Formats: sequence, structure tokens, C-alpha cells
Amino acid sequence: MALRCDVLAVGTELLLGQIIDSNSAWIGGELAAGGIDSLVQVKVGDNVGRIEVQLRRLLDDADAVIMCGGLGPTHDDLTRDAIAAVMGVELVEDEAIGDLIREMFEARGRPMPESNLRQAQVPVGASIIPQTRGTAPGLICPVIVGGVEKVMYAVPGVPNEMKDMFERAILPDLRQRSGEESVIVSRVLRTWGDSESGLNERLNDVIEQLEGPDTPTLAFLASGWEGLKVRLTAKAETLEAGEQQLSYWEGVVRAEIDNLVFGVDDDTMESVVLDLCRQRGLTLAVAESVTGGLVGARLTGVAGSSDVFRGSIVSYASDVKQQLLGVGDGPVVSEVAARQMAAGVRDKLGADIGLSLTGVAGPDEQDGQPVGTLYFGMVGPGFEEVRHVRLPALREQMRQFSVITALGFLRGHLDELPIK
Amino acid sequence: MALRCDVLAVGTELLLGQIIDSNSAWIGGELAAGGIDSLVQVKVGDNVGRIEVQLRRLLDDADAVIMCGGLGPTHDDLTRDAIAAVMGVELVEDEAIGDLIREMFEARGRPMPESNLRQAQVPVGASIIPQTRGTAPGLICPVIVGGVEKVMYAVPGVPNEMKDMFERAILPDLRQRSGEESVIVSRVLRTWGDSESGLNERLNDVIEQLEGPDTPTLAFLASGWEGLKVRLTAKAETLEAGEQQLSYWEGVVRAEIDNLVFGVDDDTMESVVLDLCRQRGLTLAVAESVTGGLVGARLTGVAGSSDVFRGSIVSYASDVKQQLLGVGDGPVVSEVAARQMAAGVRDKLGADIGLSLTGVAGPDEQDGQPVGTLYFGMVGPGFEEVRHVRLPALREQMRQFSVITALGFLRGHLDELPIK
Repeated sequence: MALRCDVLAVGTELLLGQIIDSNSAWIGGELAAGGIDSLVQVKVGDNVGRIEVQLRRLLDDADAVIMCGGLGPTHDDLTRDAIAAVMGVELVEDEAIGDLIREMFEARGRPMPESNLRQAQVPVGASIIPQTRGTAPGLICPVIVGGVEKVMYAVPGVPNEMKDMFERAILPDLRQRSGEESVIVSRVLRTWGDSESGLNERLNDVIEQLEGPDTPTLAFLASGWEGLKVRLTAKAETLEAGEQQLSYWEGVVRAEIDNLVFGVDDDTMESVVLDLCRQRGLTLAVAESVTGGLVGARLTGVAGSSDVFRGSIVSYASDVKQQLLGVGDGPVVSEVAARQMAAGVRDKLGADIGLSLTGVAGPDEQDGQPVGTLYFGMVGPGFEEVRHVRLPALREQMRQFSVITALGFLRGHLDELPIK
Repeated sequence: MALRCDVLAVGTELLLGQIIDSNSAWIGGELAAGGIDSLVQVKVGDNVGRIEVQLRRLLDDADAVIMCGGLGPTHDDLTRDAIAAVMGVELVEDEAIGDLIREMFEARGRPMPESNLRQAQVPVGASIIPQTRGTAPGLICPVIVGGVEKVMYAVPGVPNEMKDMFERAILPDLRQRSGEESVIVSRVLRTWGDSESGLNERLNDVIEQLEGPDTPTLAFLASGWEGLKVRLTAKAETLEAGEQQLSYWEGVVRAEIDNLVFGVDDDTMESVVLDLCRQRGLTLAVAESVTGGLVGARLTGVAGSSDVFRGSIVSYASDVKQQLLGVGDGPVVSEVAARQMAAGVRDKLGADIGLSLTGVAGPDEQDGQPVGTLYFGMVGPGFEEVRHVRLPALREQMRQFSVITALGFLRGHLDELPIK
């Protein structure tokens, strides 16, 4: 039974959206990697009564609570007061910290506002996490809840101070309390080409096998038009054992959906397409109309793309398609135009592969084709294909779907070419 | 006494730090601007029991709760079930939504897995927020808590679907329930070219004047490389009165920073550049290197851009710059190359204005120029300029800053040309 450590982020600015609370997400990830559960994470404003209420509620269910923020010197830094209330003790000044703060101001030759000594206030019975970067120390505060010993940790909201104290003091303390050795590792399979429910059905049997106690868990993470992520998370005694479990179950999952899996963890469709080209010694050029440059922008977002990507011609006006890409008269949103654009840009830019996209993003139809229409062409060594798909009719969605769709099908062709 | 609407974000991936919950922060900011308090925001995983517990706790204190996420078709989408449990009612299929989902799959020529109909399940007594972008509808679920009528809203976790439903259905419903007669209107001035502290100094006097009780509030909203937003928010008895206040104070603000203001509310730098060209009967062509297509992609993201934007040449490989754009030998990251690219693309694509960008996004320096170097050229009727700037050295930041910087300076030139 893993230890449970929930998180309470304190600060009105977090509720007003002036700052996005990324601390609790980071802590959650680190706790999971440390084999500790974090099941509820709460944001509350600078109000001592509400902080206390939320803190008590979290302590009812969790073994430990990490509080971020509210440790500064001002009147609305109230984390210390809420903790003292929950512990039922007084706040007293820690002389060592008080002296430290005074010295810091003297060292900077600045007068110290008295309020700064608030940061030296410590609940009776709490121990201190010394600062290495700022002035406000962190706190480790044991508390008895329903006869059970639990613990509250308080750290500053400044990310680098929080992370330093978490790694240096909190995680070791939690690991010790948990007495548990297990680690949690996860692996993400990037898929493209089926819906969430479709994947769910393909993987039904696997998901049932994974319901055992000692097997990894499987989750689907939506990533919009980028496809779906299948995440395997394993708990094991060692990192190696965990990775072994993941590799075994990755194989089981791939056996069901391998044609849909384009990458792992940090892979993106564009990084995979570039790698496939590089492994085969092929260069790529793109002719874009409806996407206006999105394909080139994504490819060049990958560092090192210049050895594969030669460039693109964004032929937004029809006569540019004709003059620069050798597209004939007739409709420019058509199979013929897509083929001519792909071949044209490949020749014009002297690349091995030509990829083209022409379609209708709206608001009006074009060449008698409805909004959402996409033709894309792929011309390369041993393949020449034009595809026609109907995509969502919202402009930006249609364009983004066009990019991932064209790259996804190009990936299929590259996959079948031999590696040099 | 303002209405209180708390937020419950649902998804194990949020607790594991695989996705940072930015939805609740956005909602909190919008609620505040609408005069509604959001005092507690909670993240919980895909566990129906825990979702229900957190939902009940929030409903004890708040008048309303907005739930984000967990509305998908799979076995770990449990928001509907938790809501039904709290309401003490059954889930029944809404035929209209069921048909809609079936039709969406037919339209895309895909077979529909049965599990998709989970998304048509609605708690008895709930009303529906129709989808305009995805398949899962939102829900408005009234519930009696301690004899008081309260309400739960459920929206998808996908940000653009969530924001659409919030603005279209949830905020209006909350405003109505709050019984607040006053309306809150706001206007955003988009600025580019100065820091927050810089704007703060320029607007010091205005901010002091705005400290009165019946004046609008002024807030700075950072929007990364897109510049800073100055938001005026006014509370008034009627929409007209509110707009009048805003117009008056917009004038006062503009008097101080007019040269920095490029647009209002939904204007973007690219939509403004396109409008300025259109008003002057000018067409635009772009030569991109370091940005790989980002400029064209942004321009064509604006509906109706085709009457101004002719296209672009993404000359990523140096020899493409030379062959297609007439760039001479010598360094391609230079003032000379930027000038030749701008003139070359203008001629090649038969446009009135040529814009070019060449620089170093890293990881390695190029032509002896450090990462972060940008040269951009602007050639048009009555102006010809090349500028050299040093930008942040992180690849994607450098590219994005390059786009907004080049468009920002082009806007300056267009602004000075007479309207046809």
C-alpha cells in the first residue's frame, strides 16, 4: 500500500489565472516516480480560514500534504498560520533563521523591514528545511490526525526553491516514512489513425489482462489532432524491473496496434518523418497551399532538420501554383493539381521526395469542393500517391488535421523503403 | 455577495504531471472578469469514487462547480457517472446526441465503435451544451444541496472546446443565476514593443486616475512573444454605458501609448497586417528561412487572407536561396541576403511587398553568427529596410519572436502608407 501525499498550492494569483500552477504537476510526477501516490491536488487563495479547511480535508484522506507558497514576508503569506492552527500550536521565532535573515539584509546594505521576521516564525514541534536560494525556510510539520501520525510539508512557491527542497528533504523523508522501495516508470506509445474508442476496442483483451495487481496500468491520453497516446505505467522494485515490464507489455500492445504506433515518448510525427528520411538518405521538399506553411514550420521546428528538409513553396495564389510548380489550368483543389504540385516542388527544389497539400479551409467552398476537403500528394523513390480526405470544417482544425494526415501517410511510405 | 463557482479538473494525467492543468487558471481569470468568485480549484484522477467525494465537498461551499475533462468515450471517462451519483439520478441516452455522433462518424466514413455512445449519456434532469468542435457535449446539471439549488457544469478537457462552451453557455448561465443586474464589459488593447514595467511607467498617471470606485479597472496580461495586453474592465448598469466608459478610457490610454497599440480585442498582428495591406490594395509575399513557414502559416490562419497573401518561398537550404531567390554567394545570414530574399520573393511571386527572414535558431551558430541572430527585410512601395536583432537563443522562442518582430516592423511601414 503506497503512501499518499496530496498537494495544496496556496496563492490567490493561482485562482485568478495570473500564474498557472505548474508546481503541483511537477511534484505529482516526481512523487509517482518515487512510488508515492498523489490523488488530489488543490489550489486555494490567501485566506487563512480556507487554507486551514482545505488542509484538514486533505489530511483526512492523505498520509502527507505538501503546501506550496504563502511562506513570504507579507501580510497575505498565511501558510505558517494555517499549519499552526491545524497542529494546535503557537508560532515562535527561530533565532537562527531570524539572525540569518538579518544578516542577509546587512550583507546587501539594506534596512530590514520588521515584517521579514515573519519568515522566521515556526510552529512549535516543526522542523526546518534550510534555504539554499532564498530567505523563507521550508517546514516539516508532524501532526496526529484521528490517532494516526501524518505530516505537512511547506515550501516556497518559487519553482527552483520548491524543487530544491523537495529533492533535498521532502522526497527522502517521504520515502523513509513509506518504508517502500518500489519505483514507478511509464512509457508512452504515440498512435495516429484511429479514435480513442477504436483503440479501446482493439486493446480490450490487453486491458483485461492488465487488470491484475502486479501488471502495469494502461491509459489513453488525448492529444487532439496529434492522435492518441497509450501510456503504460509500471510499479516495480527496481528501475530495470520496471523497464522490463514496460518492454514486455509494449510488445503485447504493439501486437494489436503496431500499424498505428508511429513513435515512443518524445517522438513527434515530424521528428519520425525526418528520421525515416535521414536513415534512407533522402531529402524532402513540400508544396503547401491550404496549410500556408504549417508543414514546413513543423519540420523545421526539429533541430537538425536541415539535412533532410530543403524547403517549400507556399503557392497560395492559383497562378503561383501554375508559374512555380507547373500546375496546369483547371481546378487547383483536385487530384491532378496535388500530383503536379508534389512533382513540381520535388524538381524545383531538387529533393528526393515531394509532398503537396491543396484543399479548402473555408469559409467558402472552392472549385465546387466543400470546406474540409483535402488532396495531398506524395512522390518519391518507388511511390507516387494522391489521397483525398474530408476533414473537420473549422479552419484551424482543418489545417492542423491536414498537416498530421499528410505526414502520417508519408510516414507509411517511408516505413516501407529499405534503410541505406 | 458574488456568486462562488469552484473548479474540478478531472484526469490522472494532471496528477502525474503529464499535462499541466491550465484550464482551471483560465476559467478562474474569466470568472473574476465576470464578477464571480472562484475560491478553490481541485485536480482529481479518473476514479469515480474520488471524483464524487471532491464534487460533494466543493458543492458544500460553492454555488456552482465547473468540471473539466472525463467526458470522453472510454472506460476511464467517469465525470458523467460521478455527476449522476451526486444528483441521485440515472444516466439515459440523449437520442439527438446519439444521432449526431453517428452522423459525424458517417461523414468521415469511419465505423463508429459502440462505446462512443457513452458520450450521449446524460443524467436525468440535466440540460445539454451542444458541441461545435468535438463529439462530447457539455452538461448543465442542477442539484439541491442542503435545501439550496446549486449547479454543476461539465465540459471537455480539450482547451478550445472548454473555452467555447464556457463563453457560450456557462458564463451567461452563471451571470443569470447571480441575479447581478450590472453588466461587466472589457476591452483589450493589444500592444507590442515595450516591457510590462515600461508600459507601467508610461501609464502611471492613468492607473492612478483609475483607482476611483466608478472607473474601469486596468490590468496587464502577458501574452509571451505576442506582446502585452492592456485590459480595461468596466462595471455598468447597461452594456451601452459600459462601452461608453471603455471608449473614453481607451482614448486616455491610447494618448499615452498609441504607437505601441497594434489592435483591439481579437485582433492579431497578422490580421492587422493583412487589413493594412487590404486597405491599401497591396499584396504580400514572404521569403522564410529560419522560420521555415511560420509567417505564411500565421497569415493564412486568417480567413480571407488570399486576397492579400500570394504565397511564400521557404528557402531552408542555402542553394535554394540562390536558385529561387537570386541570393548571391556569401553568408546567407546577413543584411545583404535578407535584402535579396525580400526583393527576390516579391519579384518571383509578383507581389507589391516582399518580407524576408533569415537567422540562426540553433543548436549551432551559422556564418559566424550566434544563435538568436535575425535579419529581416521589408521591400514595398516607398520603403526598403533590413533590420538586425538579437533574440532569445531557445529554438522555438527564437522562431516565434522572429515572426512577431518582422510582422511588427512591417506593420509600422504599412501604417505610414496612405489608404487607397
